[in-house]
This record gives sequence, structure tokens and C-alpha cells, in this order.
Amino acid sequence: MPVISSRGENMTQSPIRSLIPYAREAKNEGVHVYHLNIGQPDIETPASALSSLKKYDNKIVGYGSSEGTDELRETVKNYYCDNVSKIGIEDIYVTTGASEAIMFTLFSCFDAGAEILIPEPFYANYIGFSHVSGVTLVPVKGSIEDGFGLPDTLDIESKVTPNTKAIFLCNPSNPTGNLYSQQELNSIAELVKKHDLFLIVDEVYREFCYDSEFYSVLNIKGLEDHVLVIDSISKVFSSCGSRIGFVVTRNEELRESILKYAQLRLCPPMIGQYMAEACFTDRSAYLHVVREEYNRRRLYLFERLSKMEGVKCYKPKAAFYIMTELPVADTDHFCKWLLSDFRLDGCTIMMAPGQGFYLTPEIGSKQVRIAFVLGVEPLGKAMDILESALVAYNKVYSGSTLASPNG
Amino acid sequence: MPVISSRGENMTQSPIRSLIPYAREAKNEGVHVYHLNIGQPDIETPASALSSLKKYDNKIVGYGSSEGTDELRETVKNYYCDNVSKIGIEDIYVTTGASEAIMFTLFSCFDAGAEILIPEPFYANYIGFSHVSGVTLVPVKGSIEDGFGLPDTLDIESKVTPNTKAIFLCNPSNPTGNLYSQQELNSIAELVKKHDLFLIVDEVYREFCYDSEFYSVLNIKGLEDHVLVIDSISKVFSSCGSRIGFVVTRNEELRESILKYAQLRLCPPMIGQYMAEACFTDRSAYLHVVREEYNRRRLYLFERLSKMEGVKCYKPKAAFYIMTELPVADTDHFCKWLLSDFRLDGCTIMMAPGQGFYLTPEIGSKQVRIAFVLGVEPLGKAMDILESALVAYNKVYSGSTLASPNG
Repeated sequence: MPVISSRGENMTQSPIRSLIPYAREAKNEGVHVYHLNIGQPDIETPASALSSLKKYDNKIVGYGSSEGTDELRETVKNYYCDNVSKIGIEDIYVTTGASEAIMFTLFSCFDAGAEILIPEPFYANYIGFSHVSGVTLVPVKGSIEDGFGLPDTLDIESKVTPNTKAIFLCNPSNPTGNLYSQQELNSIAELVKKHDLFLIVDEVYREFCYDSEFYSVLNIKGLEDHVLVIDSISKVFSSCGSRIGFVVTRNEELRESILKYAQLRLCPPMIGQYMAEACFTDRSAYLHVVREEYNRRRLYLFERLSKMEGVKCYKPKAAFYIMTELPVADTDHFCKWLLSDFRLDGCTIMMAPGQGFYLTPEIGSKQVRIAFVLGVEPLGKAMDILESALVAYNKVYSGSTLASPNG
Repeated sequence: MPVISSRGENMTQSPIRSLIPYAREAKNEGVHVYHLNIGQPDIETPASALSSLKKYDNKIVGYGSSEGTDELRETVKNYYCDNVSKIGIEDIYVTTGASEAIMFTLFSCFDAGAEILIPEPFYANYIGFSHVSGVTLVPVKGSIEDGFGLPDTLDIESKVTPNTKAIFLCNPSNPTGNLYSQQELNSIAELVKKHDLFLIVDEVYREFCYDSEFYSVLNIKGLEDHVLVIDSISKVFSSCGSRIGFVVTRNEELRESILKYAQLRLCPPMIGQYMAEACFTDRSAYLHVVREEYNRRRLYLFERLSKMEGVKCYKPKAAFYIMTELPVADTDHFCKWLLSDFRLDGCTIMMAPGQGFYLTPEIGSKQVRIAFVLGVEPLGKAMDILESALVAYNKVYSGSTLASPNG
């Protein structure tokens, strides 16, 4: 039997994966599981997008341009010019989700061995992308005390080596729900210029800011060739399954390189692109409603978590996540136990254990990421479960050596 | 300004790319260009698939499983069991086109530096995929004299080194239109077993065989852990833009590795998957008509080419391509000249120069790949153009040093 690759064998997996068998088991037992573990919104996709499918009248679902369709790029350009930053259609390539946008970016910007500075915690799948592309993520530790604001620029700069090629941000942040201010981004810009780095920012949660305005790094003067933005319709328009993302950069040389990777996979999904165009049609009205809804959940979730004994939390400023610290020694164990052992009225909850969002060992083991992708009512039930579970769990495990749930 | 990656800079491009500016220029002048250069069929996507979009009634276009939807995998399993080989649903993963299937395969089977034996000429984009994944394609030269039948197994075996990890075939072949017989595949199987290699076969043109039956390597006994098949609905159902492909393997360890790469990109396009299911509904009737149509074109094309002076060709057995040898010194130059200088009744043709399908230098420079993705009537006009162009071109360039077209 032929041997598979070492890189495949060593490939990291999502930290949530190990919980899936436990969730499946619980469901098989008839337990209702509230999913707070994934970024799959329960919000409906815009009606304009869904109804556009009924009007699709091409007779051949043929290849399109590797850059993305002109129609969608034009639509996205207009959206950017109105809401984000003045860009041209040539600055945008459509990708198969933000995932592909990240892959193209890593391959086009960096050779294997390049180091990329990134505030920690960060979106767990970045680890997998760095593995595939052979780059090294160098984490700069954030602090729950200030809601995971930007780490001190001196801390960031202290990690710069001759191999450092970029700073990578997720703004607004998955998993923390933090939003970087214009001032913070300007201080990053100074570092970027000083060390001639790329500044890569994943802005897929841009439209969900609750207390203050979003500021895009695309607006920073003098960084035109340094900045690359990752974007997607997945979260904004609750269209994760369409697999439509974007890379946006004014760096022409970089675009030429990205285009070669884009040509290799021929084109992004054509029906997804067609639908994506329609997403933008009534975007203001749609996004207003969606933002209000997420905000309600955010305030409710923060209020509930704040009142739980021993729970450390902050009010997230954006996106639909919060990283919160629980009064348990190991949230991986706790999350498994919730699925395998704990039920309240026949229900339990699934959360994402914190450690998967960290590269630095030991930290994050008391944290969980909660996604508020459920309405206030089910969120309320989920919080009831969490509250009771913490009490029950600590009766059994507090101070004791942890045993694996289910034996 | 930050420096982009060397790998991005050195990334290969499709051999057809360099012709695109010439084609654009011709079109801007009002010239009609017959496209024989790409594998984009002019055949309509099945009506069942197009009409399925009108019935799409999900309110949220959410993420699906990384393996692909159960519904599509079940549909594809049934198709395989009826037409290809008895497999289980667990043997199939849905990918974002065959392109992604190839990427997942290369990363999961091979570490950087692995050598893969491949009959030459081969689909040009394999070069790009090998570049991204760091593997080395080792070509084994085929011969136009026998319609690019399988190279002698002794020739193939002579290329085996300790780094050889696989044999990669495209069957039926893009770009040659050849079909490997069961006997040829069995001889390959012996090599694969003897050297414990993977046998990777791109079978996306499986449904277009004109003279003899298709035989899948999935049916070879004793190769269950060695074989991986690449598949796609793009060509079979004229749905290139849906970006739906498949990897099929019974090797469980390999599947586990592939799944990690699949999880990283979350899921394949959901609407494309939904549409893909419907493609299979009336497949027998649809494919019968499509096969007849391609066969008509194949016979016509072969007849026309056979009658042209100095043109070397063979009757392709499958797919919708032929690699033919023209009486010119450099088809790259000839193809550019066709676009820039030659018109017949205000029309010209675009073909894919042969060299892009070869890694071995010097060979292929007299060949072109012609895709019969146009009906017999436009194909007739295209052949009239080729015939006249060869005469005109050779009046100017025969025996002389080639000058670049347009100066």
C-alpha cells in the first residue's frame, strides 16, 4: 500500500472537529444541541439573492473569467467605493470563498519559511492555511482584559525578524469580536512602512460593527502597495454556502501573481457569483435589520455572561463572536462533557474551546468562543444551560484531576 | 514596496494565455474568432439542472459538509455503481471542480520532491498544480503515430527512481483524445503494484468514448488502495461554471488526509452541488444525444484534417480533443499569426499551441490541440480557415526565419 504524504498526515484540523463525534452521539440520543460553535448564521440570505436564482436564464453554465465576472466585480467595486474605500474594478478578484482568497494571498505574497505576525487568538483555520503554504504564523498575545484590543506595537515589533514579511489582522476579529480603531491601524501602518511588510486584513465581518464606525486599512495613505484585504459574502449576506469571496489590493505586481493561481483553478463558481450580485441589491435595508438583530443578541449575551459567577467577559464591539473565560481548568474537557454528560430539559450546548485559536501553548485553555448565531430566545436557553452546567461541572471536577468524559 | 513571493513570480501560466491579447485585438477589429482552443463545450447544460435552480427553496445558503452533501454523494455513488465501478458513498468527496480534486490529491499523496510519471503530452494545467504542490512531473513521451497510445511500460519503468510515488493518467486524454484499453491499464497496474505507487487517473471525459467501451482503473483488483480517480461534472454535463468535481478512492487513510484539506476550505459550492444532483437525473438520454453530437464533429474534423496537405493526424477515440501536427515550424508563432494577420471572410481561428502540453523541450512545437466544441457547421468554417491559412502562412514563412507577427 502506497504511503500518503507526511504533510497530509501532519495537517492540522479545526479544533472543533474533535467535538463532532460527541455532538453526533448526543443527537443520536435525542438531545437538542444549541450550536454556538460555528460561524453559520441563522439569518436568512437576502430575498433578492434567492429569487435571482429563479431568473437565471443561461443555457450553458460555462466557465467565466478567472478574475470573476465583470458584473460582480463592478457591483463589488461600487459597494467598496460607497462604503469602504475608492478602488477600481481591476483591484478586485473574486475567489471561491475567503478560504481561497487567503490561499492565493499566502502563495502570492510569501515563500515557504516567511514569518507573519498575527494577534492571538485568531481564526483557527489560519493555522491550516499556513501549513499548506509553508509560512510561519508568529503570534502576538492579546489580552482578554481589554477585549483583545491590538497588542502594543512594541510587542509586535519585538517579534520582527529578517524573515518577517507581513502583519495579518482579522478586523473585526473572529474569534474575539474586537474592532481595531483607526488610531490602532495607523500605528500598525507605521510598523508596516518601517519594515516594508505586507498588511493583510481579513475584513469579512466589516458590516457588523455596533458601537463605532469601521475603518478599512485600504484608506491608509502610502500603504497602497502594502495592503491586501480578504473579503467574502458568506457572513455579511448569510451566504456561506455560495463560496464567494474576494481579494482586494492595489498592488499590481501582487495581482498579477494572484491571477496566475486564479487561472489555474479556471474560475470561481458561476451561479454563486450570479447570486452574489443580487445580494448587494438591497443591501442597506437588509444589513440594517441584520445588524440590529446581532446587536440585540450581543447585548443579551454580554448581560447573561456578565452575571455568571467566575465568568470573565467583555462587550464585543463587532462581528458575532465573543471569547469568554470560564471558571474551569480546561474548556476542551468542559465542552466535551457538555455534549456527553450534561442535559437541561433534554438540551445541551456546543461551543468552540479556546485553545484552537492559539498557537502559544497553555493560554486559551480556560476560554471558549461563543458565536451568537441564534436568536435571543434560543440564546437564552443556551445561557441557562451554560449557567447550570458550570455549577454542576465544578461540583464534580473543581480541584480534582480531570478525567475524560465517558471514561 | 514589499516583495512578492518567488513562487508566485515563477508560477507557470496556461500556454493559451499568451494568445489572449492577440484574440482580443482581433475581436476589437471586428474579426470573428472561432475558438478551438478551450474545453468549454457549446452544448447546453441539462434542462433538469437549469430548471432545478427555479425550485431551490432554502432560505439560507449555508455551509454544508466538507465531504459534499449526502444527497449529491448518494447520486454520484449510484451513477458509479451503475456505470463505472461499485463504490460506497464514503469513497466520494465533492470538490470545487476537478482542479481542487487534483490539488487535494497532490497534497495528500505526496510530499514536495515526489516524482510522478505522466504520459506526454498532458493537460497543461497539471504543470501549475505540480508547481503549487512542489511535486515533479516526469514525462514519458507518447507518439502521434499511434494516436498517443500508452507509452511502452518499459519506457515508463525506466523512469522510476526511489522518489517515484505515482503514475498519473488522463483517461480519456486531454489533449490527445486517446482512450486507454483495459489491457493497457492492466499493464500499468502491474507497474503500480511492483513499485507500490499511487495510480491517479483523471476520468473527467469518461462519458465521451466513441469506438470502444471505457474501462475505469477502479475495477482493477488488488489496486483498491493505490487508485484515486479525479472526476467532474464540467464536461459531461457541460457545467464547467458550476465548479463541481469529485475525488474517488477506496483508500481510507488517503481519504482522511484529503478530508483535512477539504475541511480547511469548509465546503464545496452549495448551489452548484444542488444543481449537480439534477444533472444526473436524465443522464442517459442527455448523454446519448451529446455523445452523438461530439462523434459527428470528431468524424468530420478527422476527415477534414486528413485531407489537408502536410497535416499529420489520427482519429481520436474519446473526449473532444485532437493533437494534430501541422506543416509549420512553430505552432505558437502560427497561432499568433492566425489571430493577428490572417482572415477569411472576416474570420479567423484560435487553437492551443502544442508546446504547452509538453515538459520536454523541442517536441510539440509543430502540434496544436483542437477542441471540437463547435458544431459541424462552424467547425467546417474553422477548417476552411485552417486550410487556407496553412497555404498562406507557408508562402510567407516556409523555410524563412520566423519573425514575430505584428513586427
